[in-house]
Amino acid sequence: MKDDKERNLEITDLAHESAKLRLFVEAPLFEGAAISLKDAQAHYVIHVMRANAGDRVLLFNGRDGEWLARVAKISRKDAILSCDSKTAEQAGVPDLWLAFAPIKKTPADYVAQKATELGTSRLQPVFTDRTVVRRVNTARLRANAIEAAEQSGRLNVPEIEEPLALEALLRSWPKERRLVFCDEGGDARPIAEVLAAAKGSAGAWGVLTGPEGGFTKKERSAIRRHPFVLPVTLGPRIMRADTAALAALAVWQSVLGDWAAL
Amino acid sequence: MKDDKERNLEITDLAHESAKLRLFVEAPLFEGAAISLKDAQAHYVIHVMRANAGDRVLLFNGRDGEWLARVAKISRKDAILSCDSKTAEQAGVPDLWLAFAPIKKTPADYVAQKATELGTSRLQPVFTDRTVVRRVNTARLRANAIEAAEQSGRLNVPEIEEPLALEALLRSWPKERRLVFCDEGGDARPIAEVLAAAKGSAGAWGVLTGPEGGFTKKERSAIRRHPFVLPVTLGPRIMRADTAALAALAVWQSVLGDWAAL
Repeated sequence: MKDDKERNLEITDLAHESAKLRLFVEAPLFEGAAISLKDAQAHYVIHVMRANAGDRVLLFNGRDGEWLARVAKISRKDAILSCDSKTAEQAGVPDLWLAFAPIKKTPADYVAQKATELGTSRLQPVFTDRTVVRRVNTARLRANAIEAAEQSGRLNVPEIEEPLALEALLRSWPKERRLVFCDEGGDARPIAEVLAAAKGSAGAWGVLTGPEGGFTKKERSAIRRHPFVLPVTLGPRIMRADTAALAALAVWQSVLGDWAAL
Repeated sequence: MKDDKERNLEITDLAHESAKLRLFVEAPLFEGAAISLKDAQAHYVIHVMRANAGDRVLLFNGRDGEWLARVAKISRKDAILSCDSKTAEQAGVPDLWLAFAPIKKTPADYVAQKATELGTSRLQPVFTDRTVVRRVNTARLRANAIEAAEQSGRLNVPEIEEPLALEALLRSWPKERRLVFCDEGGDARPIAEVLAAAKGSAGAWGVLTGPEGGFTKKERSAIRRHPFVLPVTLGPRIMRADTAALAALAVWQSVLGDWAAL
């Protein structure tokens, strides 16, 4: 907890000197809105951050922009924030989904955190033939994504979808949404080259990464059969599943996303 | 331990069906060489992997290529491998250093692992004004790098340097080695654009990332004063120090490294 606390302080110091905290809330945000914190969030603010009445807090809800609020009332059990002024207009992230085969518990948390920092709009766990994990705690993924959104300055939280089998994912994938398939097979083209060729044509994108051990041959050809799929290679070394996912997201943002030159 | 074991099995299954393990060793490798495993490595092979006489093992030492060996003798305490045939000629990775401000213990391990998978040739911890960590366990970083090299199919292990103060790093930095400075300040150019402009001019490179909280203003101008420094931005979101490092390495490999089109 201490790391998060320290970090939250540092970030909001940089962003808005007066605010000690940056929180995602569900409630509507407008001038004079009173936000009553609940459960884990109330505990965090009261007992971990030890907030006092009058302390400044930044709030966002994914719809109404970012607001500067202050702690209006605080007790050992309850904290009520009062919304003062808008500090940023609502803004999204690029339309980039990550479909990933969940691996072990910690790496999935890690993927949620990192993918959020890397500006992903949706996280979609996928079950494949070699996926060992058979259950995904989406509430936990969402908690990790919220924390990362709070710390990264995002104004929204990525959508966390329930897991899908690979076949169902491919069947339901929107036809106009291009899917960057991180393929360990031999003939895929380098990722930067494939993405650069798509430059200038805006639109919706996704990245698909496999489990440890990779996709089976059968899965690889089933994936490649779809016209929206762009197979790419991430170089000659074998990467862990989470490394591959984060690397592909970073390269995408640098070529086609909001890290790219205007 | 189980994850590593499973993973090691999977990877070497893919690489060379007959080998159950891939190990980095210090000893020279040649036909008929007898390699006596020591300490933690002997323990791993004997008690974790439960190897038997005759089992196949892949070996590399960073100099002599990759060799297929077999377990010649094994007891509860000792394991001796015998080198049979070369399976790959020695090959390096691109000449890319990562200079990073160490953060907390787990992230530094993580950075060593991921940077190894991402094909970094040297890891250089750097102490900056806002670096909280004041000691770096380089033996532990090296152990993480070795494990990642074994699993990623690399034929060498990145060099792990002792920490340097930022000033000493800049003073001793080779003049001809370009340094990609991940700058949170406002006017740096997008990373893909800066790297694309350097395309075609081969050479030695490095990436520099800061601690949580970033570099101070004074540090930023000290860094930018050097002609070998190329300031870049990694987009509008605030990233954790380890995310920034991995993202910059991935983008570099995709534009200038061995993930790029020939």
